[in-house]
Amino acid sequence: MATALVTGGAGFIGANVARALLADGHRVVVLDDLSGGSPHNVPDGAVFRRGDVCDAPAVAALFAEFRFDYVFHLAAYAAEGLSHFIKRYNYTNNVIGSVTLINAAVNAGTVRCFVFTSSIAVYGSNQVPMSEDLVPAPEDPYGIAKLTVEQELRVTHEMFGLPYVIFRPHNVYGEYQNIGDRYRNVIGIFMNQALRGEPFTVFGDGEQVRAFTHIGDVAPVLARSVTNPAAYNETFNIGGDTVYSLNELARATADAMGVPLRVTHLPARNEVRQAYADHDKVRKCFGLTGETPLAEGLAAMAAWVRRHGPREPSVFDAIEVRRNLPPSWLAVLRD
Amino acid sequence: MATALVTGGAGFIGANVARALLADGHRVVVLDDLSGGSPHNVPDGAVFRRGDVCDAPAVAALFAEFRFDYVFHLAAYAAEGLSHFIKRYNYTNNVIGSVTLINAAVNAGTVRCFVFTSSIAVYGSNQVPMSEDLVPAPEDPYGIAKLTVEQELRVTHEMFGLPYVIFRPHNVYGEYQNIGDRYRNVIGIFMNQALRGEPFTVFGDGEQVRAFTHIGDVAPVLARSVTNPAAYNETFNIGGDTVYSLNELARATADAMGVPLRVTHLPARNEVRQAYADHDKVRKCFGLTGETPLAEGLAAMAAWVRRHGPREPSVFDAIEVRRNLPPSWLAVLRD
Ligand SMILES: NC(=O)c1ccc[n+]([C@@H]2O[C@H](COP(=O)([O-])OP(=O)(O)OC[C@H]3O[C@@H](n4cnc5c(N)ncnc54)[C@H](O)[C@@H]3O)[C@@H](O)[C@H]2O)c1
Ligand SMILES: NC(=O)c1ccc[n+]([C@@H]2O[C@H](COP(=O)([O-])OP(=O)(O)OC[C@H]3O[C@@H](n4cnc5c(N)ncnc54)[C@H](O)[C@@H]3O)[C@@H](O)[C@H]2O)c1
Repeated sequence: MATALVTGGAGFIGANVARALLADGHRVVVLDDLSGGSPHNVPDGAVFRRGDVCDAPAVAALFAEFRFDYVFHLAAYAAEGLSHFIKRYNYTNNVIGSVTLINAAVNAGTVRCFVFTSSIAVYGSNQVPMSEDLVPAPEDPYGIAKLTVEQELRVTHEMFGLPYVIFRPHNVYGEYQNIGDRYRNVIGIFMNQALRGEPFTVFGDGEQVRAFTHIGDVAPVLARSVTNPAAYNETFNIGGDTVYSLNELARATADAMGVPLRVTHLPARNEVRQAYADHDKVRKCFGLTGETPLAEGLAAMAAWVRRHGPREPSVFDAIEVRRNLPPSWLAVLRD
Repeated sequence: MATALVTGGAGFIGANVARALLADGHRVVVLDDLSGGSPHNVPDGAVFRRGDVCDAPAVAALFAEFRFDYVFHLAAYAAEGLSHFIKRYNYTNNVIGSVTLINAAVNAGTVRCFVFTSSIAVYGSNQVPMSEDLVPAPEDPYGIAKLTVEQELRVTHEMFGLPYVIFRPHNVYGEYQNIGDRYRNVIGIFMNQALRGEPFTVFGDGEQVRAFTHIGDVAPVLARSVTNPAAYNETFNIGGDTVYSLNELARATADAMGVPLRVTHLPARNEVRQAYADHDKVRKCFGLTGETPLAEGLAAMAAWVRRHGPREPSVFDAIEVRRNLPPSWLAVLRD
């Protein structure tokens, strides 16, 4: 029986990865500071420790206590669009936090594989579909921080021999997702708006294109990667192939939630217009076939969301730069 | 009269850039925490403020006080080989510190150009001579941190319009260099060893190849870049073209210091074997010709070093990972 650390395991993807690991027979420890996640997301079978991945002494003590075989590092603040305005917070949480865990994994000497969730944000406005051999060109601090950690894992492997697996997921949605984050996850935002009887808000004309991915197609693959040596020291896109415009997504989400479609268009913000990825590599390495159809995934998430009810959208108050902040985000700031 | 901030202006390159800026008629403010530099390096005509570039409130206050036109961001801990073992410190000082200044520059609204000293460490073991259009592939945390800041400046320019100039110097040596840092700057280390009557220490066989650059060929170009709009939003290698092995360098340094050549070879460490760069771009943009010959530059530095005397080599005690630390560095750690 192997012991796995899941950072961010009280968050959306982490809660699902923790469940997949327990189902595969592993022992699971969740480390999460609850800045974005909820303790109710942590599965019963897992040990939960509240703490910050940037807290080096606490992280070192945790590694000494549990002698982890595997680390699944998912803790991050992932609001890509907001990252321009909270650069310090972004790099502290996402780079310094990751490096703290990498140091601890090297020092522990027990860790056999370090799994990291990067993002297709590393590609920037690249050619689509984005494939793993493209030269990364991130366009926001979130994507830059993810790329920095990817490079850290590569040099740590060269210097200290720590094996890693990097996943670049995109637009994942589903059960345990935080629908109260105003700054990210369009499907969660739409569903929360549906529950609150509000129109859906879309930045720009809604013709930006994404491929959405149900969590059921992602979490088990991450969990199994540590027992798939062919995946070691490799980087994989992971997610759905079928692309939708945000306008099409709004239609499908309204249907899943059983509400009439109402959309408010906000001024366009600085974002990548077309982002979807090629998944040949992950499919070959993990023998994957098919994907959850959007309507089916949305229905599963909608059922979960209805059970849990609406949330008051949170406000991120510690904005570092207000210049060019989208007006809808500026309006909610408390001074 | 424009006002320029020079971070790291109590350090080697910064002290020289501050002098070049004063000579060009600018007003100069130096911000330095003296972690590596010396207040004696700050030129008389400059305002000196002791402080940490990571201290966001202090940095914001400084920008409010002086309304800088130009920022020359040179503060960093630049011990490339040590960076594997102090990842957290490296990313905190070099990424969080840089991002703190970038935020302040955006918020101030007065800054017309942000100059950053990156490094050829961003290239990794790339083809030589390294040219600016190569895809970066850094091999240590120092190089990754430099690349992260380069990317930050690019996206900050896209999002907020802040102009920047990036320089990638390499193996700069000369007057005002700290010869008491045990972990970096081979010429400073050799000269200190010469003054102390010790043999020169070389990692490995000494056949690794570098091009050394006298500070006189670097500092004035950095200083003038802010008044050269053709340089804006561009990245430049800067430094010498003539390559030497470390064994050849040891010979030349012994001659400059007037000591017999004695070399102790230490076990090889993980470092790039061939690192030198192409300088066509900087030469064209700045109209540069020629370079200071090694013997001449070494003689100038040797004269300065003899005036200032030997230093007790410092020990960096806050090592985060001891595994694979070169034995000569491990031996000096106080527990
Ligand atoms: N959801 C997506 O579509 C998507 C796409 C690409 C990549 N990712 C990445 O996957 C990972 C998980 O994302 P998610 O969608 O589940 O987000 P999430 O916000 O639901 O989960 C992140 C969790 O990390 C925790 N956390 C944040 N900072 C922490 C810190 N300093 N210390 C300890 N815990 C901390 C939060 O409390 C939260 O529970 C992230 O790394 C994210 O960047 C997600
Ligand atoms: N010397 C080289 O060959 C070389 C090559 C490539 C790049 N660079 C870059 O040029 C810059 C200057 O290098 P240098 O050789 O003059 O080094 P240096 O150590 O002499 O100067 C760096 C200065 O920064 C200060 N400093 C460090 N951290 C600080 C912090 N957090 N807050 C405030 N001040 C801080 C130090 O006290 C020191 O005075 C660095 O960014 C370095 O990475 C140098």
